[in-house]
Amino acid sequence: MAKAAEPPSGTRDLLADDVRRRKHAFDTLAAVFERYGFDPLETPAFERLEVFAGKLGEDASALIFKILKRGVHEASGAADLALRYDHTVPLARVVGTYGSRLPSPYKRYAIGPVWRADRPARGRFREFTQCDIDTVGSSSPLADAEVVWAVHDGLAALGLADFHFLVNSRLALYGLLDAYAVPAELGPPVLGSLDKLDKLPPAAVVTELVERGLPTAAAESLVADLAGEDTDRVRKQLDDTERGRRGLAEVDRLLELTAGLPAGRVRYAPGMVRGLDYYTGPIFEVVAPGFPGSIASGGRYDGLVAKLGGPDLPACGGSIGVERILAIQEADGVPERRGLDVALTVLGAEEEVMRLAGELRGRGLRTGVYLGTSGKLAKQLKWANDQSARVVLLYGPDEQEAGEVTVRDMASGEQTRVALAEVPAHLERHLTA
Amino acid sequence: MAKAAEPPSGTRDLLADDVRRRKHAFDTLAAVFERYGFDPLETPAFERLEVFAGKLGEDASALIFKILKRGVHEASGAADLALRYDHTVPLARVVGTYGSRLPSPYKRYAIGPVWRADRPARGRFREFTQCDIDTVGSSSPLADAEVVWAVHDGLAALGLADFHFLVNSRLALYGLLDAYAVPAELGPPVLGSLDKLDKLPPAAVVTELVERGLPTAAAESLVADLAGEDTDRVRKQLDDTERGRRGLAEVDRLLELTAGLPAGRVRYAPGMVRGLDYYTGPIFEVVAPGFPGSIASGGRYDGLVAKLGGPDLPACGGSIGVERILAIQEADGVPERRGLDVALTVLGAEEEVMRLAGELRGRGLRTGVYLGTSGKLAKQLKWANDQSARVVLLYGPDEQEAGEVTVRDMASGEQTRVALAEVPAHLERHLTA
Repeated sequence: MAKAAEPPSGTRDLLADDVRRRKHAFDTLAAVFERYGFDPLETPAFERLEVFAGKLGEDASALIFKILKRGVHEASGAADLALRYDHTVPLARVVGTYGSRLPSPYKRYAIGPVWRADRPARGRFREFTQCDIDTVGSSSPLADAEVVWAVHDGLAALGLADFHFLVNSRLALYGLLDAYAVPAELGPPVLGSLDKLDKLPPAAVVTELVERGLPTAAAESLVADLAGEDTDRVRKQLDDTERGRRGLAEVDRLLELTAGLPAGRVRYAPGMVRGLDYYTGPIFEVVAPGFPGSIASGGRYDGLVAKLGGPDLPACGGSIGVERILAIQEADGVPERRGLDVALTVLGAEEEVMRLAGELRGRGLRTGVYLGTSGKLAKQLKWANDQSARVVLLYGPDEQEAGEVTVRDMASGEQTRVALAEVPAHLERHLTA
Repeated sequence: MAKAAEPPSGTRDLLADDVRRRKHAFDTLAAVFERYGFDPLETPAFERLEVFAGKLGEDASALIFKILKRGVHEASGAADLALRYDHTVPLARVVGTYGSRLPSPYKRYAIGPVWRADRPARGRFREFTQCDIDTVGSSSPLADAEVVWAVHDGLAALGLADFHFLVNSRLALYGLLDAYAVPAELGPPVLGSLDKLDKLPPAAVVTELVERGLPTAAAESLVADLAGEDTDRVRKQLDDTERGRRGLAEVDRLLELTAGLPAGRVRYAPGMVRGLDYYTGPIFEVVAPGFPGSIASGGRYDGLVAKLGGPDLPACGGSIGVERILAIQEADGVPERRGLDVALTVLGAEEEVMRLAGELRGRGLRTGVYLGTSGKLAKQLKWANDQSARVVLLYGPDEQEAGEVTVRDMASGEQTRVALAEVPAHLERHLTA
């Protein structure tokens, strides 16, 4: 295969069954978000380059696809537009653009492609779909809880049964640092190490904490308190600090407001950190057996919309890792191919065949007509078989004279003669039986 | 409004109702194409730049958005990728990439954005959705007829009632030139002038033909024969030439194979040219009162897939001008806003409110919970009103004590007290009544 014939590095051609499977998943999620009163938003594939300027970190900025100026400016080699890197920067711009014309709070979902010039790898694409919900303009704990509910319902609607939320709070994490007397300058690296408690053995995390400058005793008691299932010891420690108490209160409020979800679905995880440092309040992550890492995440990020150039509004949101979920479901499941309901062979009387096909389509049946050049029935039956047709219709000279059609069921091989006018009703019965 | 806050020139932010309306239209069209056995195809937003090289004319090439190389190559100012200009170039690439792994013939639909750096104008966007169906690998007249049927059913499904197809054939047009003794070198300009017969008075077209070098007598008889409703005179002329006879046969076959469509829907239009010179067989255009220009078009283009770098396969297809149709339908219709089915006020007992909201959403009701900070009922009712809520629920201290909820119908203003446990069933009945 010539390289020029492949899609660009890190991108995919989505053929029939892929498109259908993805569309079904996206529609399913959209329907859930609609029930929560989230509104859809679609922004352009690209934004003015200045919309990104200084908004993303250095690492992210390097991954932006930039679009060359056009016309006489093309030769300058300069760019003025950039492909969407995520749905958050466009959201901040939209909130700034439309302001009070948007509902308040503004609850929106975005399910669509984003582009990142990442090094392509297994499961990592340069064009992939992100699925976000966000509520801008509410500081209510009910908004945080609603995001958790909506993400929960979204995952359940995708067919996931065994998953749970780990929740924590940025404030509780700061309280943790206070309670265990971690020096301020060690805060970020210590949280970074604690975030590995789900991957590394506790002793390895202790070693890393000590390497980063924490006294051994503090490192050991911190890890011992966080590693267990029991959160009581950590709670007691947090209760002794002001930030810890406020953080715990945030976590407990979120647990109370999501108590209506199935038991055990939402759990306090005092050592869960979330890498992104723009979170300011409650944070969550969803884990599921069989899925490495997390399949959804989110939290409150009150300063971010302003930092991204929008108005200074509180906000919270969540993101479902729909590409990751689809990839794992695909690897597990049997790929389903959508075939034809009815294949019409063409043995003369083409006008009548087209008319009949039109009637069948009018009844919602997926109907194909043989478009090849062969007049041989065997060849046409092979085509019908390739199309996974459930039923094949034969309307040859015999049938034409009798005003009938031969209906062949491809699974059973059974053949029935049906009066031409009766065929649509007959097939509707036969195929929905 | 700062310029940086606007979407890039020629693009649009699609807010809630726009997204919903467009999605509904696209889903409607996809469902029609599925019934015909067309498969969806989604290609990446960008292709390697070389995929376009020499494939588009000079005018089109100038409209391509090119993507700058990344990393250390960015400074070169060179591009290696380009945004999708249409769905046809990617189709040719895909047919080349997947070859025999695709069904044969390969019938696909593509509904998705394309990008063109056109000068933005009213109704002309730089990011817009194209909706194409194509059949690659069939030279059967049934394939041409099927495209006409599918486009017909698509337009009807979009709610258009009054429209018709103008059909012609490239061969018939060449036959026309032969029959009226138009010198070969005058062929293209003469066809270009004839294409204006639907916009200019016949005399103006005659003048233009004469200016282009056609003898006055030939120009007058050509225009007289084409301008009338009656196609008999043209048919007689075409019958005298070899290409004319073959072209007429193509047109008549298409008319026969679409005779099952409502009467008058498909008409021979001997002067209809279609600008694109890659068509090789039957061509069509759909016109409708109230829509300037055409709302759909297509035809057979047997040489194009090879010219675009794919294998040498016959092909035909059609395109529905869905952006144009949506724009005119929007201008005509009342914009519909999707509000909440149920708005829950928050007057304490938040856990219970969230639980109730969860139950209502589980029954498919679009349910919003007040996420603001005001404890005042009047403010919360204003919010519910802004959300176009059909029903508002009040669960204040009185109701909490009685284990009831006050259900207020926003249209009638009527209030009912309902036992808490009965609320979901009550609302389901009330809102679907």
